[in-house]
Formats: sequence, C-alpha cells, structure tokens
Amino acid sequence: MEQKKKFTLLSELGEFLLIDKLTAKNKIRNKSTIKAVGDDAAVIKYPDDKVTVVSTDLLIENIHFSLVYTPLKYVGYKAVIVNLSDIYAMNALPQQITFSFAVSNRFTYEALEELYQGVYQACENYHVDLVGGDTTSSVKGMFLAVTAIGQAHKDRLTYRNGAKPGDLICVSGDLGAAYMGLQLLERERKIVEKNPEIKPDWSGRDYILRRQLRPEARKDIIELFEKKAIVPNAMIDISDGLSSEILHICTQSGVGAKIYEDRLPIDEQTRQMAEEMHLDPTIAAMNGGEDYELLFTLPMEEYVKIKDYPQITVIGNIVEDKSYVNLITRDGTEVPITAQGWNAYQER
Amino acid sequence: MEQKKKFTLLSELGEFLLIDKLTAKNKIRNKSTIKAVGDDAAVIKYPDDKVTVVSTDLLIENIHFSLVYTPLKYVGYKAVIVNLSDIYAMNALPQQITFSFAVSNRFTYEALEELYQGVYQACENYHVDLVGGDTTSSVKGMFLAVTAIGQAHKDRLTYRNGAKPGDLICVSGDLGAAYMGLQLLERERKIVEKNPEIKPDWSGRDYILRRQLRPEARKDIIELFEKKAIVPNAMIDISDGLSSEILHICTQSGVGAKIYEDRLPIDEQTRQMAEEMHLDPTIAAMNGGEDYELLFTLPMEEYVKIKDYPQITVIGNIVEDKSYVNLITRDGTEVPITAQGWNAYQER
Repeated sequence: MEQKKKFTLLSELGEFLLIDKLTAKNKIRNKSTIKAVGDDAAVIKYPDDKVTVVSTDLLIENIHFSLVYTPLKYVGYKAVIVNLSDIYAMNALPQQITFSFAVSNRFTYEALEELYQGVYQACENYHVDLVGGDTTSSVKGMFLAVTAIGQAHKDRLTYRNGAKPGDLICVSGDLGAAYMGLQLLERERKIVEKNPEIKPDWSGRDYILRRQLRPEARKDIIELFEKKAIVPNAMIDISDGLSSEILHICTQSGVGAKIYEDRLPIDEQTRQMAEEMHLDPTIAAMNGGEDYELLFTLPMEEYVKIKDYPQITVIGNIVEDKSYVNLITRDGTEVPITAQGWNAYQER
Repeated sequence: MEQKKKFTLLSELGEFLLIDKLTAKNKIRNKSTIKAVGDDAAVIKYPDDKVTVVSTDLLIENIHFSLVYTPLKYVGYKAVIVNLSDIYAMNALPQQITFSFAVSNRFTYEALEELYQGVYQACENYHVDLVGGDTTSSVKGMFLAVTAIGQAHKDRLTYRNGAKPGDLICVSGDLGAAYMGLQLLERERKIVEKNPEIKPDWSGRDYILRRQLRPEARKDIIELFEKKAIVPNAMIDISDGLSSEILHICTQSGVGAKIYEDRLPIDEQTRQMAEEMHLDPTIAAMNGGEDYELLFTLPMEEYVKIKDYPQITVIGNIVEDKSYVNLITRDGTEVPITAQGWNAYQER
C-alpha cells in the first residue's frame, strides 16, 4: 500500500525550531569561520595579509525564478552561485555566506528542506560555510537574500576600473545559453498551461536548461589566475549580459572597446534553440544575461599564459577612445554596443 | 500658484541610473572601507588584531512594517538599526552595511529617496558606511535586506553561551515600549479606516511611538563596556522579547535564571498605554519584542562598575539549575518563563 507523504506546516514548528532543523546538517569547512549560525552574528577571521570582500543579492519568486519549472533545490543552489560569482569577479575566494528567506505559511518544512539541500550542495561544491541568515514570513511568495563574504590578496584584487588601451578582452565559458534556456522553459510553460496533458521533451536541451536552472560560478578561472600568476586589469561577472558588463568596464575605466561578433563563444545548443525560435544567437550572447561567466581584460603580454585554455576566449580589445564601444559584426559593420541590461522596473 | 509635485517613475530610470542617483550622496567614514558601492563586491580591511562580525535581517512590508503609518525614512532607519543592534550584541562595533531592496514599479524614485534618507541618517548617527546592496523589483510590496559588518577584539567578543551561575542579569534602557507603540498605531489605524475624518491624537505618546517607528541601537552601552573594561559573560539583543532572549542565553549557556518582576524597567508611557488597553505591562516587557535593548550577564564583582548608570538595570541572576527559568512576580509567586517569541508562520 502506498503511504501518504507527510508534510509539516511551518506554523507547527515556529521560527526557532525551524532554524534548528534546517541548520542541523550545516558543516563548517573553513578555519576562517570562528562562529557560524546560532548567535546574534557570525564571527570570521581572515589571515592578516588578506582583505575582506562582501557582496549581496536578492532573488524573488516570479521575478528571478519560477517555481512552476524550477525545483527548490535548484533555486537554493542558484541563489548561492550568483553571489559567489560576484566574489570571484573581484579575483577573491568566497569563504562564507549568509542565507535568508521569507516565505508564506503555505510553504511546508519539506519544501524548505529541499531549498536548503541546494544551498548546502553549493556550499560543498565551492568550499563555503553557511554562517548566518534570517528566517521570516512573507504575505505571499518566496524571497531570498544571500550575502557572500570572501578573501583576497590586496594586490590581486580586480576592479572594474582598471582596463587599459590595448588589453585583450576575454570571457570564460560561453554566452547566451541561460537566456535560451529561459526562453525554452517559458515557451513550454505556456504550452502546458493550455494543454496540461502535454509532456515537454527536453532531450538535446540539457545544457541550456542547466545553464538557466543550475548555473555554476567560475572558481576554476580564479584558481587558474592564481596558478599562472595572472591579475586581470579589470574584471566583472556577466549577470546582466555582455553588452551591459563591457559598458560598465569601459565607463569605469575611461576606455572604449572593440568586440568581434565571430569571436563570441556560443554553444551549439544555444545556436539551435535560437534558430528554432527565430532569434539571433548574437543577441542572446550580448544581451541575454545570467551567464555568470567572467569578463576580464589582460595586457597583451599575458596572452601566452591563457592561450591554451579552451575555457577562455579572447573576444576583442580595449581601445583608448572611450566613446567607441562597438561590436564588429561578421560582415565587418561596426555597431555601437548599448546597455540592454535588465530594467527591473519595466511594466510587464 | 501651487506647483504640482513631480514624481519620477522607476521605469524611466532603469536600475543602473537608479542606483547612481540613490548612492550619489553616499559618504564613507571608516578607514576600513577600501571599496564601497560600484563594483561586484565591497572591499573591507580591519586591523590585524580584530575579528569580523556579520549579521543580516529581512524586513518585509505588512509583516515587519506598515506604510500606512510609517514614513519611509523611518523604515530605512529602522532597517539599519535592527542590524546594528545584532553587531553590538556581540560587543562589536559595526563599520559597514549593505542595503538591498525590492519594490514594485508603483513606488516612485522620490519614495526610495526618502527610504535612503533614513538609511543615510542611521549611517551618520552610528558612524557606519553603506558599501553595497542589490536593487530589484517585486511583484508587490517592499522587501528590505540589510547585512551589517563590524569589528571586535577577539577576547572581547560576547556570545550567548557564556552565562555563569551567580551572574547578574542586566538590561539596558526599558522594555515593552515598542510593543505598546505598535498596539497604539494599530488601534488608531482601525479607527481611521472606519472614520477617515478622525485625526489621531498622539500627544503624550511620543516615546512609545518613537520606540516602535524609529528605534535606536545601544552603541553607548558597548562604548561604556570598553571604557570600563567590562566584558559581559553573555549578551543578546532583545528583538523577540525578554522571555525569548533569556531562554536563548539559558539554553546555550546550560544555566537557569531568576528574574524579578518588580525590577523590570518599564517607562511611564508604556504603563499608561498598557493600562488604557487593559494589558499587563509586564507581559509587554517580557513578550513584546522590538526593544533593541541589550540583555547581558555580568559576574557579581563587576556590579560596582555599572551601578551608577541609570541606563542599566539589574533584573535578576543566573542560577545553576538549568530547568529553572522563572519570573518572580510582585507577590512572590514563581512563574516559569516560556518563549512567547514571535511565530512568523502563524495564521494571521
């Protein structure tokens, strides 16, 4: 006989017992974590030659994620990843996170346990400690806030404002996949809404779906920089799309940029999906966002150190004229790059 | 001729311009802030003999605050204060905050400017730097997330778990006022909802209203500890009510406590309001919450150092028997203290 699955209401637990249960499996990995969850604040001590780097992000249901097609453990995982990505973008190593959530009392304890599964998985994969957070209720929906804290050598820190004319513009991984994954998920959601019997076929789409639902952060690139004694002149992570991020680097560095369309790293699944949806894959790569890849600039003489890494692509170079931030298309046309960054406040 | 007030829609600005405008007046006060707003992450460096302390809180419209009766600058101020209070409760000094918000596009730029006025005022009053945050949209309502970062001498850190039998239990300021302020505001809100013509009369209520709407954190007490070379054995800030907090200290320290009802510091306005509403002021003091006072325990021999400070009251003592956490009422009855701490997930 099938046993009925038991669900625990949050109102049965109360806030303190809920926190105790969710953090019971919390594991501390870093010596720098002196005190984690359980007091008024967490306590951290980095080595004297390090500086502390702090970043924070909000993730809001039906703005940043949809529970219609995202398993809660992926939501938890991604919430951590997007924050770690900001720390890596400083050429720093994340060591601690705080994770806070507000949910309505329609969420069960079991749902939150799944959310935390994702958080703990990300902590394990990136060797990071969960050291605090806040737990409260919302009128409706789920709201997440994550703060990531990391350490860096002061003279290895990488800001957005250090790009120099002549620098090579490099990007890790590939671009536009997360955006095409989102387009696919949204298309299928609408189809299933109308015809609940239809089962979406995801075969051959696994890469773009993973990039949207369960992205990774580029720890490997930061470790490569350390190993190869590379310090980029400027770096930023790609969350709002390449266009928006290269403009941040150019504006803050007082330089221009030339990016070559035919150099943009785009995965085959991204191209296929774009073609099927009659979208230009270049648009997905330039303006899609949520890639969590690193965009950085390197002096030409450092090129030799990275040229054998397939995970790093040179896509252009920094120029002196700060009014010149252009994409050179395949046919040689120069198109000014404009910020298509996500406008959170647009009417939907 | 009266000029029509101009409001700016958030969709006119977009996220980046919005952040630029809101942070244009940001002022950095602390040497430990190496890089504030404007990159992927903030950069902080504390002196080598200090440890880093981190705390975070969510504040959600219609759960933690109501915009019906709370000016936005008070919301911003309080959001910062409740986080600083957690840092002080570690016997640490806050130095930086990150401030994040999500709002629907029905909020105007001018509304957010008022919110930030409160944030900046709190930063000024407590000598703290705004170093980062996230800015996004919500489907409905306002969501705030604040992280506070501070520094402490490692051997002056004060946890919840250090209380010793014989310790005096002390509390700063007075208790229950913020709770009675909330009761008053809620009562008047209901009256005005039914009769919009009625203008509430707040005279003689200023203290309890201020305690609810624009609380302060006890920086002065932490400075006194430093000056007098006091390190409490245990400390916590009172956000969920004295009952809940003393139970945290007792559970984590493995001790019991005896608290005397007639020693509880309660302001005259709190008593009057409680009487008018047929509530027991002791209940407000024990279970009300949102006092943001410090609850701490001191060895008896330290008493001489604090006895002349009217802002510190001894309300009881720590006992060895950890099953004994009692309130001794005015008539000598012993009543077990139970956690009436806020259950965020109760049906409303």
